[in-house]
Amino acid sequence: MNARASLYQARYGSADTPQPAAGSTIIDHLLAHRSVRAYLPDPVSDDSLAAIIAAAQSAASSSNLHAWSVVAVRDPVRKARLAEFAGNQEHIVEAPLLLVWLADLARLESVARRVGESHDALDYLEMFEVGVIDAALAAQNAVAAAESLGLGTVYIGGMRNRPLDVAAELALPPRVVAVFGLCVGTPDPDKPASVKPRPPRPVVLHQEQYSLEAQQPGLLEYDTAMSEFYAAQGMKVRGTWSNHSAKRVRDAASLSGRDQLVEALHRLGFPLK
Amino acid sequence: MNARASLYQARYGSADTPQPAAGSTIIDHLLAHRSVRAYLPDPVSDDSLAAIIAAAQSAASSSNLHAWSVVAVRDPVRKARLAEFAGNQEHIVEAPLLLVWLADLARLESVARRVGESHDALDYLEMFEVGVIDAALAAQNAVAAAESLGLGTVYIGGMRNRPLDVAAELALPPRVVAVFGLCVGTPDPDKPASVKPRPPRPVVLHQEQYSLEAQQPGLLEYDTAMSEFYAAQGMKVRGTWSNHSAKRVRDAASLSGRDQLVEALHRLGFPLK
Repeated sequence: MNARASLYQARYGSADTPQPAAGSTIIDHLLAHRSVRAYLPDPVSDDSLAAIIAAAQSAASSSNLHAWSVVAVRDPVRKARLAEFAGNQEHIVEAPLLLVWLADLARLESVARRVGESHDALDYLEMFEVGVIDAALAAQNAVAAAESLGLGTVYIGGMRNRPLDVAAELALPPRVVAVFGLCVGTPDPDKPASVKPRPPRPVVLHQEQYSLEAQQPGLLEYDTAMSEFYAAQGMKVRGTWSNHSAKRVRDAASLSGRDQLVEALHRLGFPLK
Repeated sequence: MNARASLYQARYGSADTPQPAAGSTIIDHLLAHRSVRAYLPDPVSDDSLAAIIAAAQSAASSSNLHAWSVVAVRDPVRKARLAEFAGNQEHIVEAPLLLVWLADLARLESVARRVGESHDALDYLEMFEVGVIDAALAAQNAVAAAESLGLGTVYIGGMRNRPLDVAAELALPPRVVAVFGLCVGTPDPDKPASVKPRPPRPVVLHQEQYSLEAQQPGLLEYDTAMSEFYAAQGMKVRGTWSNHSAKRVRDAASLSGRDQLVEALHRLGFPLK
């Protein structure tokens, strides 16, 4: 099996997803992504961070508004508090750098004030969504960039568990909120991360129109692929991917506090009209 | 000036943003991104699309839930209707392929029903945000992948102007909504796109805590860099980036219909609790 075939095999596991003929070293790099949760203590330099942020800034931004920011947190005490807010995730403590990606409408308010315009559009859900999208596009470029420098990353959705505490910790002004965190550091070679399989392509890719029915065979294949992945990793996981995912969306209590997100956003200056 | 220095110069324009020593061919590739709005008619093959989607799927997904989908639209009639919904954007008509990226909670509802769980968490804003983030991370990998195959792309936020019409056109079930579109095609070499400058790094990158004040010098530099960019492009643009951006967020009317997004999402099966 050649190197590219191995990448596709790891990416889709045992699911039947034919490998395309088209390819590139960039795509190979993206295919090899894995989330890293064990880090060496080596710091991430400001110089490396500058290259990572340049890549992040190179992502598109809606209407060229740049409705995002990112806070680089290295202070161990602050990082420990943020780890606690995110549900005591030990890898946030261990990673030398935590990037907190923000939907940022405060900058646009400051620009509007400076040029003497009103800024009523910032009160709408649409502009919150623009901030979330801008932050996510930038962050994903940052992930590809960090990995190309030999670093590992993992996203931290738990940064939305306690948004008011996170905002206070990072001194966020009104109209700024954390979208997610991203741990960055040198992967611990003694605890290598694995490529986690994805569902077969037809689960996510639709032709001309959406189809829920067309996804069902692929979802069953994915349950098998994930069970084989857990077994190969020596992880004793009960139930299928379908079981776990259903539990994750069962009720408000499954949301780790994020069922209060609307209330928190209102208090952080997002009326969400 | 070497190749990498040229990339940084184009990315930041005249703004004073020192080039880091760290770098990689991946980062160079990301730095060279430009939005393409003029395409040759050459089709994008299913094979190329498969490689692009494999890269998209390789992005992280919140709790491994895969709360996104994408519809590949090539039918010229459907594409023309979607172009109209997005505010008559001619490049959607011209591009051989339009990818519409979706926040998809319908799949998770179908999974929960199959395994006999309730799915109340899907009613919350948090899960809508998860879908938006998942779709954006996947799409940004798709952009890097497409560009590595010699293709060009441009995001279409206008896909949120008329979400109900888009949903009907793509046969979206409840709990699925378009996040944005992405045109994909071979760039027209007679109408080359330019790299648009970004604000200086200190505008978006904060150390330990957020600062609005620290951004102000960089924003003024960015006004200058963008004015020089417009002049170099032969574009007769009145006013600064600050002026344009302020106008874009002035009032509900600046949102091109997206001030109705909450109402549309309610009708599309997102209670946004």
